[in-house]
Amino acid sequence: MPLQRLITFTTDFGVTEHYVGAMKGVIQNIHPAAMIVDITNSVQSFDILDGALAISQAYHYFPKDTIHLVVVDPGVGGARRPILARAGRYQFVAPDNGVLSLVFEREERLKVRHITSEQYFHHPVSNTFHGRDVFAPVAAYLAKGVDAAKFGEEISDYVRFLGPKPKPEGPNRWKAVVLKTDKFGNLITNITPGDIPQLFDGSSASFKMTVGKSEITKLSSSYSQGPSDELFVLVGSTGYLEISANQGSASRLAGADKGSEVNVTLTGSTSS
Amino acid sequence: MPLQRLITFTTDFGVTEHYVGAMKGVIQNIHPAAMIVDITNSVQSFDILDGALAISQAYHYFPKDTIHLVVVDPGVGGARRPILARAGRYQFVAPDNGVLSLVFEREERLKVRHITSEQYFHHPVSNTFHGRDVFAPVAAYLAKGVDAAKFGEEISDYVRFLGPKPKPEGPNRWKAVVLKTDKFGNLITNITPGDIPQLFDGSSASFKMTVGKSEITKLSSSYSQGPSDELFVLVGSTGYLEISANQGSASRLAGADKGSEVNVTLTGSTSS
Amino acid sequence: MPLQRLITFTTDFGVTEHYVGAMKGVIQNIHPAAMIVDITNSVQSFDILDGALAISQAYHYFPKDTIHLVVVDPGVGGARRPILARAGRYQFVAPDNGVLSLVFEREERLKVRHITSEQYFHHPVSNTFHGRDVFAPVAAYLAKGVDAAKFGEEISDYVRFLGPKPKPEGPNRWKAVVLKTDKFGNLITNITPGDIPQLFDGSSASFKMTVGKSEITKLSSSYSQGPSDELFVLVGSTGYLEISANQGSASRLAGADKGSEVNVTLTGSTSS
Repeated sequence: MPLQRLITFTTDFGVTEHYVGAMKGVIQNIHPAAMIVDITNSVQSFDILDGALAISQAYHYFPKDTIHLVVVDPGVGGARRPILARAGRYQFVAPDNGVLSLVFEREERLKVRHITSEQYFHHPVSNTFHGRDVFAPVAAYLAKGVDAAKFGEEISDYVRFLGPKPKPEGPNRWKAVVLKTDKFGNLITNITPGDIPQLFDGSSASFKMTVGKSEITKLSSSYSQGPSDELFVLVGSTGYLEISANQGSASRLAGADKGSEVNVTLTGSTSS
Repeated sequence: MPLQRLITFTTDFGVTEHYVGAMKGVIQNIHPAAMIVDITNSVQSFDILDGALAISQAYHYFPKDTIHLVVVDPGVGGARRPILARAGRYQFVAPDNGVLSLVFEREERLKVRHITSEQYFHHPVSNTFHGRDVFAPVAAYLAKGVDAAKFGEEISDYVRFLGPKPKPEGPNRWKAVVLKTDKFGNLITNITPGDIPQLFDGSSASFKMTVGKSEITKLSSSYSQGPSDELFVLVGSTGYLEISANQGSASRLAGADKGSEVNVTLTGSTSS
Repeated sequence: MPLQRLITFTTDFGVTEHYVGAMKGVIQNIHPAAMIVDITNSVQSFDILDGALAISQAYHYFPKDTIHLVVVDPGVGGARRPILARAGRYQFVAPDNGVLSLVFEREERLKVRHITSEQYFHHPVSNTFHGRDVFAPVAAYLAKGVDAAKFGEEISDYVRFLGPKPKPEGPNRWKAVVLKTDKFGNLITNITPGDIPQLFDGSSASFKMTVGKSEITKLSSSYSQGPSDELFVLVGSTGYLEISANQGSASRLAGADKGSEVNVTLTGSTSS
């Protein structure tokens, strides 16, 4: 493996304390040519699904062979394993807790290793901060050209979960959920066009969606084309259905947030 | 145009989601030598004036030919045009919605182009995230040396607004506004020394300023020289008059924030 | 001194305004090869101790000769001096207000200079933003290879305070304090194992700790090994005792935060 420069960070360590800075110091110390790009360090604390969403939305825009460090690690100090994964054209360093599940969903070629070679750790290794003591130095040595096989043996029993899907509740009804609220107040649901194709097929079908205290019946193709006086849905840049407002916060307007239930009903032709 | 490394980000995409990370991935993929510096990604959502303020305060400290990416884009997916602007010694990539207005106020040499060459976009182009699909790749190709003329034709009808000025309300009275509250709680107003020179001319004129529930009558030359038991005003590093407290939050103390009205009255000589 | 690339930022300027961006522009303009890494720009406003904690926790993970810019500067525009410090293997540029105190505690070889050479400042020098006008350009010229001696004379009367220690309140009682709450809600106290060794010596001693409305009697070696239904303490990655919850916010559960009093009592053997 040739030398890599680019290492990305997706963590829940935040930007208010020194945690991310310490990790970057460890990397620069091992591999001074490294260039670190933050995807986000503001994953919701302890929230593996939120981290899985963040990395799955961004990793594939980076150059081939970029090393993605993904640390949402509520199990630090316990039995969970550190892993090194080759997935498609990219490399990942993460705890084995499912945080790469949505990456694995998108990629066919997977090779996952259990990181066991302690000579690549930062010593002494704490029980509380493997981001600094395990994951950062492993990413740095990998970027510096150490062969993946040197870090540990391949495994097949790594943790992997399925992304949450909307549940059918009858012939024309589904129960879904808000996966997250973004900075603009858009409510990003777990519905993709493939889950309820009738919503998007250009036929005359109309729908009713409820979230929080709001009812939505309009579909838009963009934020700025949406109505200015009511909420609407669109397929967001994430590939998920979003409940949005035109230059406003749908979250605030609907009184809904991450975890809120979303009910979808197809109501028949628009002429009804 | 020779190769550029430096690209800055001024956006309202926040740091909590993957949005900025995806944009940086797109840039690194096109132009691996790029170095990206964040001015801020926490512009108030949808707030073009707030974005205009941020970029206008920072761009001119960077090296000549730096490419400034400025994306506050409530009109994404609608009719607003993407533009490429040469302003003085710098280059800008932004939506044509006025977000560069305060840069244009400071620069004499302007050349603005409508970006139309879709071969420099990231495909497929979404209707909801031109930061990733249009502005980031254009900035990357520009940095990589693609000639500005290749992106589109020069235009002269680009959007441009005037910064908000204090309004005279009588011979010795003005009505002004708080443009923003900074992290320290300083209330940054839209008043510059040129607007009310009598405030700053070193003569014996005294003044009364009201904002929120507070009345201010003291002028200081620095935060640490200001009185510790009352609010005061000073000319901040932004060039605007700020209402401040000594190691405290003027915003909290006055009960005022972005958008609050500021009334200024010259009260005559200090001996009165 | 050879050319340095790496400059870190530890400031209270926040990420919402242009302040940090302007400082980075000044640096890039002087020294285009510089690479800037943020430790954090979200130090609590005006809080010198909070800044001292942040830099002391991260600086030593970086490569030898890294230049650490540390700007928490409530005295800007007053009489406090700008300083340049060599401490162990690192260099620091900061206001002389004690913000480097906890670094100085860890290092034996110290050489501190009063920065007086105005040719290395960004002119005109404001009274309100020496981060941009003094500290950033000095760091850039230092990184570019200007000899430390050129910036000013060595001084020995620089400001230095002792980190806050727990106070004995009797033979088996101490009063301590919460230094900060981190993003996860961990309450980081000012207690180190050296302060109350009986807590950690593996003997049968048990203890009672109170903070906010909570009482803590359990010690854990990691977050994930702690009880799931009550607060516990552990020695965190910072070296300080933390009051924590298993995948929850101890701060919220205890109703405690930065500045909260912590009372520790040794209660004798666990058999009691």
